[in-house]
Amino acid sequence: MELTVYLAGQIHDNWRDEVKQIAAERNLPLSFVGPQTNHDRSDNIGEAILGAQPSAYYKDNAASDINNFRTQVLMQKADVVIALFGDQYKQWNTAMDASAAITMNKPTIIVRPTALIHPLKELSNKANVTVETVEQALDVLAYIYE
Amino acid sequence: MELTVYLAGQIHDNWRDEVKQIAAERNLPLSFVGPQTNHDRSDNIGEAILGAQPSAYYKDNAASDINNFRTQVLMQKADVVIALFGDQYKQWNTAMDASAAITMNKPTIIVRPTALIHPLKELSNKANVTVETVEQALDVLAYIYE
Amino acid sequence: MELTVYLAGQIHDNWRDEVKQIAAERNLPLSFVGPQTNHDRSDNIGEAILGAQPSAYYKDNAASDINNFRTQVLMQKADVVIALFGDQYKQWNTAMDASAAITMNKPTIIVRPTALIHPLKELSNKANVTVETVEQALDVLAYIYE
Amino acid sequence: MELTVYLAGQIHDNWRDEVKQIAAERNLPLSFVGPQTNHDRSDNIGEAILGAQPSAYYKDNAASDINNFRTQVLMQKADVVIALFGDQYKQWNTAMDASAAITMNKPTIIVRPTALIHPLKELSNKANVTVETVEQALDVLAYIYE
Amino acid sequence: MELTVYLAGQIHDNWRDEVKQIAAERNLPLSFVGPQTNHDRSDNIGEAILGAQPSAYYKDNAASDINNFRTQVLMQKADVVIALFGDQYKQWNTAMDASAAITMNKPTIIVRPTALIHPLKELSNKANVTVETVEQALDVLAYIYE
Amino acid sequence: MELTVYLAGQIHDNWRDEVKQIAAERNLPLSFVGPQTNHDRSDNIGEAILGAQPSAYYKDNAASDINNFRTQVLMQKADVVIALFGDQYKQWNTAMDASAAITMNKPTIIVRPTALIHPLKELSNKANVTVETVEQALDVLAYIYE
Amino acid sequence: MELTVYLAGQIHDNWRDEVKQIAAERNLPLSFVGPQTNHDRSDNIGEAILGAQPSAYYKDNAASDINNFRTQVLMQKADVVIALFGDQYKQWNTAMDASAAITMNKPTIIVRPTALIHPLKELSNKANVTVETVEQALDVLAYIYE
Amino acid sequence: MELTVYLAGQIHDNWRDEVKQIAAERNLPLSFVGPQTNHDRSDNIGEAILGAQPSAYYKDNAASDINNFRTQVLMQKADVVIALFGDQYKQWNTAMDASAAITMNKPTIIVRPTALIHPLKELSNKANVTVETVEQALDVLAYIYE
Repeated sequence: MELTVYLAGQIHDNWRDEVKQIAAERNLPLSFVGPQTNHDRSDNIGEAILGAQPSAYYKDNAASDINNFRTQVLMQKADVVIALFGDQYKQWNTAMDASAAITMNKPTIIVRPTALIHPLKELSNKANVTVETVEQALDVLAYIYE
Repeated sequence: MELTVYLAGQIHDNWRDEVKQIAAERNLPLSFVGPQTNHDRSDNIGEAILGAQPSAYYKDNAASDINNFRTQVLMQKADVVIALFGDQYKQWNTAMDASAAITMNKPTIIVRPTALIHPLKELSNKANVTVETVEQALDVLAYIYE
Repeated sequence: MELTVYLAGQIHDNWRDEVKQIAAERNLPLSFVGPQTNHDRSDNIGEAILGAQPSAYYKDNAASDINNFRTQVLMQKADVVIALFGDQYKQWNTAMDASAAITMNKPTIIVRPTALIHPLKELSNKANVTVETVEQALDVLAYIYE
Repeated sequence: MELTVYLAGQIHDNWRDEVKQIAAERNLPLSFVGPQTNHDRSDNIGEAILGAQPSAYYKDNAASDINNFRTQVLMQKADVVIALFGDQYKQWNTAMDASAAITMNKPTIIVRPTALIHPLKELSNKANVTVETVEQALDVLAYIYE
Repeated sequence: MELTVYLAGQIHDNWRDEVKQIAAERNLPLSFVGPQTNHDRSDNIGEAILGAQPSAYYKDNAASDINNFRTQVLMQKADVVIALFGDQYKQWNTAMDASAAITMNKPTIIVRPTALIHPLKELSNKANVTVETVEQALDVLAYIYE
Repeated sequence: MELTVYLAGQIHDNWRDEVKQIAAERNLPLSFVGPQTNHDRSDNIGEAILGAQPSAYYKDNAASDINNFRTQVLMQKADVVIALFGDQYKQWNTAMDASAAITMNKPTIIVRPTALIHPLKELSNKANVTVETVEQALDVLAYIYE
Repeated sequence: MELTVYLAGQIHDNWRDEVKQIAAERNLPLSFVGPQTNHDRSDNIGEAILGAQPSAYYKDNAASDINNFRTQVLMQKADVVIALFGDQYKQWNTAMDASAAITMNKPTIIVRPTALIHPLKELSNKANVTVETVEQALDVLAYIYE
Repeated sequence: MELTVYLAGQIHDNWRDEVKQIAAERNLPLSFVGPQTNHDRSDNIGEAILGAQPSAYYKDNAASDINNFRTQVLMQKADVVIALFGDQYKQWNTAMDASAAITMNKPTIIVRPTALIHPLKELSNKANVTVETVEQALDVLAYIYE
């Protein structure tokens, strides 16, 4: 049984590649989808498609239309969601995606450092599982196939 | 990941062929469905299957049964909806299909000329993305695969 | 049993007052909600609350946010929807509201002149009942209480 | 028509009192619900009911059970959600509640300072309306009753 | 706790009056809704509101629009459905209403004579309870209040 | 696009074979499912699996458990439902299946002789399309692929 | 805001009276519903309404029809569910009701003695909150009103 | 038509192997999923992935997160659920899974010894079919393909 996994979360390092590599090493039948991970491309996608906007606010508005479209398409296709929080940035998209996934009854794993236990306690509580490392998230996915 | 796209909208020119051609040129793994695009066939399908009706009103009623059946089958299969408005005609089926798609949580792109910004403002606002050209709609779909 | 009726449709004449008057004359236990019927107020509500926008397009965008918010709140409260089409204007909001209501399983009555039979045939077919006058729509509502 | 409004967001100042006062001044038929606003009480509620936990992590876990229970009960009763972001703290519960509300089709207003436009752009885009002040949020609610 | 009960079924005798009388005698806090029980009125309602139709088929079509509208409004308001089958007629509306109610998760009681055990066995099996008399149906409703 | 079609209706003649033959002749990419068509097997399946029951009533009850299980599995897999009524028997399972399918938003075609127009008028009105012959039902399905 | 609380669980002592008394002492605006608590009445209700059955198995089958009807009606009306497990009996109805409530998104509190931590660990994990005493369950409900 | 079957129930003997063997002998196109059947692995999975917990209670809590994640993923993929009760243990996970499956409209078969007829009567009543042996459960599945 192949599963599609949506990888929500920060796009400032290559944690998604790490996830895919571990899955490949373990021969897990998983395919992965997620947001645009090129930060500039994500911020500029509205103007890239729709043309110049009158200000930064409208540029952001145009980009978010298209980013949300992409997320909605791919999350509806996903069987499972992993949402990773790092130690920097607001990461509100991560919280938004994790909460939407949980509300849509998508089984959800949160990955977060221990420093974030307190501020993420209610979201962690609503998710199925909260772990601290990408390896642990893959351990949880691998457990499905045991 | 292959996606099925429902192409709602006017059937007075060959914009659907243009969509398919661009998708093919870009090697996007998309398959397309949509309404009957032969206008006469669409208007006459009720009488063609059920026989002559007592008046134009009943002919329309019979045709709409079958057109709505087709739309319901295909839209339920679609992952994404593109709804194109042109500068002519009432195009209420386009509005109906776009609104139904949005209410069913189908990710939806509206294509419309700038002349229609004002009368379509609430529908555009409910859709995920509104663009002006078919090329831009394909840009949005292509962004899913980046 | 009191019912709440959402009155979707054009805001260019006082048809909603006529509906309310007939309901009162017949002592029907109905309460009515609907969109903002002051056209200028509806078009300007975005700038009225959020301040001046950079162009007509963004003014429309801001207004539609708030008009759609109002419609969503009130339509979710409605037990029944009446959608009236007149012989002028695009009336895409009417088509949008009727289609959303039907998709949400709200029992829906369409009121439209005979001149619109053909272009509205698919939407009429999806609605529960289509009539030609406001009086007939009230006849349908009154029938619930017989 | 009375509406119940869930007031999601930070609990570090008395913005909810301000909301209630403005609603009272305008005679809006609104009733308000929301999270526990006593921060210590919210953090300690798990141990207050269930007894001492082995560490801060388990204390947080116990508290979040009960805070999430409260939120789920009250948000299911709400017709509308206002989610306010301030300029401090992670505010992940605000993002979580707003995203859950939107996914549950609750009409949602976000209030945030302009400094947060960029990091909140995707969440704002999914909400119905985004404003900058509590007064503007009440303007939007008042518009329902015009 | 007051409950609304939809009384689906044949309209050829006064069994609904019997239900209401028993409920009143037992002081059960029930209110009852149901279809039009004047058979002629039900058959003629389409032409009564919409005017003469070209044939019996179209007369039936017009009447069913309005009868289905009434049923949808009232069944959505109902907490419980009682569907009574008698020993005559096709009674397909009764089967249709009972099956729709069960699919909508409305708790449903079927009342049918023993002669109909075999042809109704699958529908009875899907309903919550099947009884033989109106008194027994009221016994089941009364049990809720014990 | 392959579609799965549930063939609800009487099991007293070989109309399902006729449907499959026409679909094959037209090269329509349809696969068909439906109820047990061996009448004795359907009536006896409860005792065949669970052993002798104390009376005809309990035999029917046991059989209907298993017949309803089969129908639920297969109808949930179906994209489209055809429900055929003949001129004999109560056919309440056909009405039950058609009504359940419509309530589950399965696009539904009813096939019935003209003699049944009046007693089936409300169910026909809720279905997408009503036709008189199996050939016409296939015409409607074929129209999806034009 | 008044809330309706379904009290699932064993019927071998008067814990429901204790719940009601504590709620009254604290002036909590709660109303309570639940299963038939007279064990003999619950076991005999099938025969009491439907008459003698051929064996204990069929007596149980008849009773369960009516008990499940009652539970479905009342649980659909409930805003919150408390499910209490004691130290005796199988208590599968309690597990069934709690699991159904959680799957229906009803906020759910489990009350169980510490001896049952291990066998109830997965169900407790799916519920919102698990406590050990009725007083603690009321503490959780009271917290909603703080 | 291939179906996926979730095998809920006790993990103390090899009944799942028996199910798979019978399915293979009959050439039924079924694939099977289910919970972790290594009891120690199931109990220890929380600590195995997340590390040592402060007490047995927290060890159970961690394990149940991951067991529930697995169950949710696999049950959402299942077309049918078989839930087997044996004559030992509390088996609350079996009751929980069966009740969740039924509430999610998954067609469900319960297998239980006759000794459990009385305590399981309400759950059996909500399931589609209740049988006594694994062979009978496969008979029911095989009937889908006749």
